[in-house]
Amino acid sequence: VTRAVWQSAESESPDADVMAFLAGEDVVMDRALFVHDIRATRAHVGGLMRIGVLNANDARALEAGLDALADEHAKGTFVLDARFEDGHSAIEAYLTAKLGDAGKRVHTGRSRNDQVLAALRSFARASLETLTATTLAIARALLARVDAIGSAPMPGYTHLQRAVPSTVGYWLAGLAESFVDDAELARATWSWLDASPLGTAAGYGVNLPLDRDGVARDLGLSRLVLNGVAAQNARGKAELAALNALGAALLDLRRFAWDLSLFTTEEFAFVRLPDALTTGSSLMPNKRNPDVVELMRAAYPRCAGAQVEIASVLSLPSGYHRDLQATKAPFVDAMTKGLAALALGPLVVRGVTINAEKMRAAINADMYATDRAVEAAAAGTPFREAYRAIKSDVGNASGRTPEESLAARVSPGAHAAPRTEELRARLDALASVLATNGN
Amino acid sequence: VTRAVWQSAESESPDADVMAFLAGEDVVMDRALFVHDIRATRAHVGGLMRIGVLNANDARALEAGLDALADEHAKGTFVLDARFEDGHSAIEAYLTAKLGDAGKRVHTGRSRNDQVLAALRSFARASLETLTATTLAIARALLARVDAIGSAPMPGYTHLQRAVPSTVGYWLAGLAESFVDDAELARATWSWLDASPLGTAAGYGVNLPLDRDGVARDLGLSRLVLNGVAAQNARGKAELAALNALGAALLDLRRFAWDLSLFTTEEFAFVRLPDALTTGSSLMPNKRNPDVVELMRAAYPRCAGAQVEIASVLSLPSGYHRDLQATKAPFVDAMTKGLAALALGPLVVRGVTINAEKMRAAINADMYATDRAVEAAAAGTPFREAYRAIKSDVGNASGRTPEESLAARVSPGAHAAPRTEELRARLDALASVLATNGN
Amino acid sequence: VTRAVWQSAESESPDADVMAFLAGEDVVMDRALFVHDIRATRAHVGGLMRIGVLNANDARALEAGLDALADEHAKGTFVLDARFEDGHSAIEAYLTAKLGDAGKRVHTGRSRNDQVLAALRSFARASLETLTATTLAIARALLARVDAIGSAPMPGYTHLQRAVPSTVGYWLAGLAESFVDDAELARATWSWLDASPLGTAAGYGVNLPLDRDGVARDLGLSRLVLNGVAAQNARGKAELAALNALGAALLDLRRFAWDLSLFTTEEFAFVRLPDALTTGSSLMPNKRNPDVVELMRAAYPRCAGAQVEIASVLSLPSGYHRDLQATKAPFVDAMTKGLAALALGPLVVRGVTINAEKMRAAINADMYATDRAVEAAAAGTPFREAYRAIKSDVGNASGRTPEESLAARVSPGAHAAPRTEELRARLDALASVLATNGN
Amino acid sequence: VTRAVWQSAESESPDADVMAFLAGEDVVMDRALFVHDIRATRAHVGGLMRIGVLNANDARALEAGLDALADEHAKGTFVLDARFEDGHSAIEAYLTAKLGDAGKRVHTGRSRNDQVLAALRSFARASLETLTATTLAIARALLARVDAIGSAPMPGYTHLQRAVPSTVGYWLAGLAESFVDDAELARATWSWLDASPLGTAAGYGVNLPLDRDGVARDLGLSRLVLNGVAAQNARGKAELAALNALGAALLDLRRFAWDLSLFTTEEFAFVRLPDALTTGSSLMPNKRNPDVVELMRAAYPRCAGAQVEIASVLSLPSGYHRDLQATKAPFVDAMTKGLAALALGPLVVRGVTINAEKMRAAINADMYATDRAVEAAAAGTPFREAYRAIKSDVGNASGRTPEESLAARVSPGAHAAPRTEELRARLDALASVLATNGN
Repeated sequence: VTRAVWQSAESESPDADVMAFLAGEDVVMDRALFVHDIRATRAHVGGLMRIGVLNANDARALEAGLDALADEHAKGTFVLDARFEDGHSAIEAYLTAKLGDAGKRVHTGRSRNDQVLAALRSFARASLETLTATTLAIARALLARVDAIGSAPMPGYTHLQRAVPSTVGYWLAGLAESFVDDAELARATWSWLDASPLGTAAGYGVNLPLDRDGVARDLGLSRLVLNGVAAQNARGKAELAALNALGAALLDLRRFAWDLSLFTTEEFAFVRLPDALTTGSSLMPNKRNPDVVELMRAAYPRCAGAQVEIASVLSLPSGYHRDLQATKAPFVDAMTKGLAALALGPLVVRGVTINAEKMRAAINADMYATDRAVEAAAAGTPFREAYRAIKSDVGNASGRTPEESLAARVSPGAHAAPRTEELRARLDALASVLATNGN
Repeated sequence: VTRAVWQSAESESPDADVMAFLAGEDVVMDRALFVHDIRATRAHVGGLMRIGVLNANDARALEAGLDALADEHAKGTFVLDARFEDGHSAIEAYLTAKLGDAGKRVHTGRSRNDQVLAALRSFARASLETLTATTLAIARALLARVDAIGSAPMPGYTHLQRAVPSTVGYWLAGLAESFVDDAELARATWSWLDASPLGTAAGYGVNLPLDRDGVARDLGLSRLVLNGVAAQNARGKAELAALNALGAALLDLRRFAWDLSLFTTEEFAFVRLPDALTTGSSLMPNKRNPDVVELMRAAYPRCAGAQVEIASVLSLPSGYHRDLQATKAPFVDAMTKGLAALALGPLVVRGVTINAEKMRAAINADMYATDRAVEAAAAGTPFREAYRAIKSDVGNASGRTPEESLAARVSPGAHAAPRTEELRARLDALASVLATNGN
Repeated sequence: VTRAVWQSAESESPDADVMAFLAGEDVVMDRALFVHDIRATRAHVGGLMRIGVLNANDARALEAGLDALADEHAKGTFVLDARFEDGHSAIEAYLTAKLGDAGKRVHTGRSRNDQVLAALRSFARASLETLTATTLAIARALLARVDAIGSAPMPGYTHLQRAVPSTVGYWLAGLAESFVDDAELARATWSWLDASPLGTAAGYGVNLPLDRDGVARDLGLSRLVLNGVAAQNARGKAELAALNALGAALLDLRRFAWDLSLFTTEEFAFVRLPDALTTGSSLMPNKRNPDVVELMRAAYPRCAGAQVEIASVLSLPSGYHRDLQATKAPFVDAMTKGLAALALGPLVVRGVTINAEKMRAAINADMYATDRAVEAAAAGTPFREAYRAIKSDVGNASGRTPEESLAARVSPGAHAAPRTEELRARLDALASVLATNGN
Repeated sequence: VTRAVWQSAESESPDADVMAFLAGEDVVMDRALFVHDIRATRAHVGGLMRIGVLNANDARALEAGLDALADEHAKGTFVLDARFEDGHSAIEAYLTAKLGDAGKRVHTGRSRNDQVLAALRSFARASLETLTATTLAIARALLARVDAIGSAPMPGYTHLQRAVPSTVGYWLAGLAESFVDDAELARATWSWLDASPLGTAAGYGVNLPLDRDGVARDLGLSRLVLNGVAAQNARGKAELAALNALGAALLDLRRFAWDLSLFTTEEFAFVRLPDALTTGSSLMPNKRNPDVVELMRAAYPRCAGAQVEIASVLSLPSGYHRDLQATKAPFVDAMTKGLAALALGPLVVRGVTINAEKMRAAINADMYATDRAVEAAAAGTPFREAYRAIKSDVGNASGRTPEESLAARVSPGAHAAPRTEELRARLDALASVLATNGN
């Protein structure tokens, strides 16, 4: 165990149990943040050099040291563990061990309070970019299936009861549109977080003319969180907004997983999952279970739990409190796991086999009742009267076919007027933004 | 009790207990949505006329009927209650009673499924506008206090322990910046919801060439939710995003309320609340309690609970399910109460009396230690060495004053370089957007 | 608006908006607590008389006044509304208006702080009794169906995939056992709350030798919450425990509702709901929707949200804070609505029609694979080898019938050894406790 | 990676990414459950021997093998990792590798579905015992401080405002009573979980006359979960009840931590934390921060988040679904961390130094107003009139002392009649139950 940065040479280390309680998991969580912390530290070094607090030699040495640390961390030769009080201290300890006095200068003008804010914001923004890209990838995979098999008729359900004829393409294009919405939410949240907290120190600034604007620019951020109280008050709030965007995507994944779980029952038998997405039972030789789909359905809860966990910390006066550390684990863990579940989305979309015959056969005569009522309304009967007339004669739809019903579904966005090009345009616009300035 | 829209003349009414379970509170909740439902219905009528499903006379009669209904509802002469299955049915029932066949035509080409989505989106957007305006008003009230008394020194705290000298203005400006962040989040969420679900019917469109684009335009929305599956999947997700924005503001209100609760203790005695914001005890004649501030601190929980309540519903396959009704009450109730708590914000900001002497007196000599360490670092001592040297001599700060410490705090955003004009520019930009196109 | 109990004659009323914020909904919520508050006040009056603070005449007058108030409240001639600061003040105001000085004596030695604790505890205990009785009633209704149609074979599912033959009775008896578990949890929670907070005053006792033990006895409580700090710290914690018990029952209701929602699809068609439990669509004449079942499925979320809402308040130092008022509405509302949803349980259990033919037909040959593997294991083949052998020959189950499979299911609790009498014994034991000392 | 138990020799392994998604963290979580799984497996082996499915030699070999595995796992020579699909499979794989056919027999008549239920229940019960013991230990530590320094006067607060004179002992005894309540809740929950799910197999029993009663007895459980549907429906519900008990204790820990956080500010300065419970700042040499107390305050959120995460999974039809795996990590993690935070409780209670002078000095003359009003009421003035009279003369309490006020506080449970022996009796009764039959 290294001496904590705030300990004097002679001071006693706190009780080992207490230190374990304080630091243990936090250091492990800091692994996910470490690359972001190193990156922010590198920007801070540049800023210190520009205001003359570091000379060029020290600055270059520190930058090289930080690059080496990032490299060793990536390779696994440097392990962030309970030797260190936290990831922030580890950076200073590493640089000091390697570079001596230059290392002892790196923390000039900053506090772990703004250091963790900078690392978390960098992690959040990177995660939101991944979220944007992943939801777009799911949408694209869905639209590819729409192109291939979109016109196959299937029942449209409400209340899990057969309602009107629909198509495989309408189902999947709807999900695609949902995921594009999610991508836009992720991007909007990314933009909302486009401000640098680095340089607010412990929450009250410092007596140095820090080049905060330059540091922000190096971190790809377009403005400053000016005030340290505001920077601290954003702790948790930023995380909740990022998880709100993640949750939106996971809720759509949950809906899709529910559809598949239902449609892959023997009773529906509308879809079949590939072997790679099913498992067996330890007791029952006949089982073939859709575990992957079920765990995708169960991916949202981690996000919901993390939001509550973070918010439950946030009943505090202004300024930093150690309680805030307890917002880190749920944020990093939920984001990591949520993105992992979404990452399997395109694989699942591509892997599902559609049983078009079963689907078409499930469209029965009652399901034309709405068409008939609307036709009568268009022809002049007041709708409510047409509705009641057909209700008492609901199965009398002789000769109608799903295809005819679908061809007449001309309301904008419906089967006969899907305007999918508008959805593709939104998707492409966002993809091109990601490609050019995504960071 | 009126007959449900879907009941035929001869059909038995469901059991009264069952109907109460199904409808009771929902109809009451629909009161908050009613004006939005009427507005969306008016737009739908215009659309039906443009495609020839309604003639001009019927359309004009329906529009007048809807205006009359809105008026009666506002005056309280029309009461939405358990006579009706829900607010949607009440509109059709009212119009049919008043206008006969024209009323029976109003529901042509739509379903309560898209009707409630339209009303909810309109309510959400209006609420987000109010949220934007209210958080800006709080920020403005805070900045007015900053202008008036901002330079008064007070301790800056971390961990509730005295850290470094700060000012009243720095504290309040930080809160102002937080509320401007919140206003921007509210606005971004409003923009994300800028799409019309009306015309997706029960989730699968209809066999009519509805003028959805025109209807959207009349509702102040710039594009369509194209696909009905996407429209249904957005149920709950939209509400969660709106509550995420509300929650951000309420979390800042909670921080501010905590500060006041703490600062108004006799031990701190930094601020005094006006009589209008305190109450007494039923038992203890000496008490003067900050109840208003405490209930502002307790305003966030309703929002947190509502988010969990809504999300807890959202484990469903695609399409409409009656379960979704259970997302309505928490959304409407949490939004209404959260906005009410925020609305008192400016009153509280303006009402607080600052005890500048007490605050200044709480700044002790130890609190200059950071200044001294950073000064030494700027002069060449490696920061960590300077830190350790001062740690063992922490009280030796003879002659330093809060004012000198604050004058030297030149890092951007800190006391001596607050750049408040940048914050005001963000505030003014958003206020001017609200004024011009805020619907 | 009446003057608040703590206001002096000359004091200004707080701002009307502020008073509305403070009191508005709370007074409405107090309606559900009012009968409990009156009951606890009556017990307090008895205690004051026994220690000589009230003479017998005053005590009798107050008791009669409280009975009259309860009566008027029940009849609706006394309405608890925003004229009063809260329900507690309303009682004193009513008694003072009616009885003069005697009314001004009723609050001697207590505070609204312990008064609300007493009323909430009484409400919680009564609710838990209802919860116990209702879950037992559901269990009894389920067991009646088991007796009637229990032996009908149906597929047993895991992962929504057909697993092994089972029966309708096994499904319903399992749910019955779950609801008996829930009843026992409700009762255990009731017992945990068997202590009286009344007499802790504002949290620090009073300078009177209150007969707290006698008051507790009159309230049907067997011991005291001794310490006022403990009494305050239980606020919210008691509510969370009661909602934990409610939630357990609602989660089982949710499972049952999911089963019915699934089994009533046309694809499964295992059950049919009676007309009284279904509704129609405003657009689609053919629809017959299981709305009641869906809203039962959606009853748990209110409870989940309330738990989070209450817990979100509970980050406070010891002692009373006005924040705690914000725990009242979610508790009362969630409990009331949750019990209402459960109350429909027996109706639904009795109303469902079983389609035994459809169920039996869904048992296919693969589903005997487990029987075959276990048979081979019992005959000496290592189980894992038997499992693998049958896995590659899974459909080869010629001649087996569901009835044979079920007759051989002899593990304790399974179809051929259900030991339902043990479950009935638990049910009866609890019912008899309720009948005798259920307060 | 070992072959999954359900895979045939020839079958392809699922995609590696997919397997990682399915198994990764679950296997790690199973580490905490492993000892419980081994224990339950040992009981299962005994049961199989008694019904003749295993001969005595095989049974003895398996028991020895399980003991060896437990031992290797404890020593770290056997590591549960991603080589195995889950902990359950690892046991069979280990035994088969070591013992051949005997190992392949161990899974006869059970499924991973009931195996995980058994392990989870064993973990839950053991955790609830620890919770009971830990909360009692905190209560005992608090009462020891009451004995030592209990009579020191301090202000009693409501709304964080000074209310009436109180004592250190009253504050700490109140917390002790709260923790005894928590211990009783933990114990009641432990009793509610006193039933064995082992032997319900995949949820439908098996065609073997398993000795479930004997197995339950060996596991220290007094009855069976009879029905497999009930066993599955208890998944998550049992976890939520256990976390409800944990949460109650953590909420009291939170209250206590808040008290300390407040009382250790320089403004209150009522208590001082020992060096072992404070840390420093990376930037500010003067800081001495109560991080341990702050993290104790922040321990509840993990529990709150876990409850929501688990409940968010539980919207499923009856029977096992892979989704349920997602309830495991939050349960095990929240329980482990919550117990760790509580375990530091006695250390903190013992470590706090009380500044009795500061506390006594904070009692001002206004705080006798309640005593005076109640005295007047006892002497015959209607209480509300006495209250109002004193309200206008609140500071006029010449000559009163805290000691006199406290000596007169004779309501049962208050300072002059604490009846602490009743609390000690509850504490001792529970401790003695734990000592004798605490499993």
